[in-house]
Amino acid sequence: MDRMTNERPLILITNDDGFRAKGIHALASALRGLGDLVVFAPDGPRSGMSSAITSSLPLRYALTYEKEGLTVYSCTGTPTDCVKLAINEVLARKPDLLVSGINHGGNMAICVNYSGTMGAVIEGCIFDVPSLGVSLLDHRADADFAESCRLGELVARKVLAEGLPHGTYLNLNVPVAERVKGIRVCRQTDGRWVREFKRSEDGSGKPVFWLTGDFECHEPIRPDNDVLALDEGYASLVPCKIDVTDYPFMETLSHWNL
Amino acid sequence: MDRMTNERPLILITNDDGFRAKGIHALASALRGLGDLVVFAPDGPRSGMSSAITSSLPLRYALTYEKEGLTVYSCTGTPTDCVKLAINEVLARKPDLLVSGINHGGNMAICVNYSGTMGAVIEGCIFDVPSLGVSLLDHRADADFAESCRLGELVARKVLAEGLPHGTYLNLNVPVAERVKGIRVCRQTDGRWVREFKRSEDGSGKPVFWLTGDFECHEPIRPDNDVLALDEGYASLVPCKIDVTDYPFMETLSHWNL
Repeated sequence: MDRMTNERPLILITNDDGFRAKGIHALASALRGLGDLVVFAPDGPRSGMSSAITSSLPLRYALTYEKEGLTVYSCTGTPTDCVKLAINEVLARKPDLLVSGINHGGNMAICVNYSGTMGAVIEGCIFDVPSLGVSLLDHRADADFAESCRLGELVARKVLAEGLPHGTYLNLNVPVAERVKGIRVCRQTDGRWVREFKRSEDGSGKPVFWLTGDFECHEPIRPDNDVLALDEGYASLVPCKIDVTDYPFMETLSHWNL
Repeated sequence: MDRMTNERPLILITNDDGFRAKGIHALASALRGLGDLVVFAPDGPRSGMSSAITSSLPLRYALTYEKEGLTVYSCTGTPTDCVKLAINEVLARKPDLLVSGINHGGNMAICVNYSGTMGAVIEGCIFDVPSLGVSLLDHRADADFAESCRLGELVARKVLAEGLPHGTYLNLNVPVAERVKGIRVCRQTDGRWVREFKRSEDGSGKPVFWLTGDFECHEPIRPDNDVLALDEGYASLVPCKIDVTDYPFMETLSHWNL
């Protein structure tokens, strides 16, 4: 399953906006020079799917495009399903790199928890594939991906060369700017979404609730904080872990005498 | 929003198996002595939903039961949606405790990443509500929840008394046993699911893929490993963190000169 010396790297590309999104096309174009690309992405939008998996319905996939060095599949599942299905059933070997995105919208701070883009990255990491998520802080369908492509390619190239530790994945977020000031290595800012629902009524007058909200920081702004870096015009790069154990608190818990 | 001195604790109960599941009824019965209970749970099964949120469809909820000290709502959303909607729009004040479960099936090791039960717990923690997930290693609809209720109540009572640090939540898993040997404080075992798909055909002979699989450990079995504790007949209690930053690797990344 591992890469042969003379083989071109095999790169799995996915996202949560679906295989038709501008962001994933931009990403595939940007990474063409790095290896053979397989796009295996949802057949429509799956934003906010986190690491959701589909077990009560069957999954299907279809080949939608094939040309030398670029193959595109669409899949009925979530981003996590896509990664599982691609690696288990479709790819000839384990990919050398997974890149998810470019997401239409930021995935900084706590968004890493809800994001389908990052769900796919987490899944790649679980498979021990060096995995990177790239997100642009612009939700628009026609967003300009030029800078996020430039930076995504830069980081992807470096990950291919250096690898990543077992259980660690990367979360790259890019602000809207003609020229980003650089990439700042950051940690996940502590904060959460507030004012989360817009209440309205359905056709018969019954109340319904639409998810919305604003992000609120829970900590003083410090230089290694991803939200600050983005505010200041830098791209933020946060290394994240699969293992969520709170090791220091294990000691306290062991004294609870349960 | 905070608890008044003479007020009974307000406990939010949710799950990913839906408000009709035996596990959530068992949990509500077990926690009746600890405070006023509000069950706010999905209107049907939402297993494997992780921290998925619903933003492209409106959410609805309905009161399904009300008696002194116990109110039950069902909701069209995911477990995470349920917690968001309950705390933002329904509860009179922020709850003093959130307990999610009792899940029909284990959520040890990497399952914390995919589980809707744990997605709800993570969301409670993001709201700074002390939050606990309880899962029984038995998927059957008519599983026997007696031991998991006893241990869940024990841990819930302790969390109410001691609180939890900001950003830390608990994952309790209970093996199938007439009498569990005790609760062991553990860390998340490193491993992943393998052989994940069963290939079959739909009515017209087209291939479809059903998610399935076996869990495979990636590390030597050690005493503080949650999978081992469960194998040995102990319940496992893993403290987990919202912040997934890989702090040690930030240093390495900063030398990549991106």
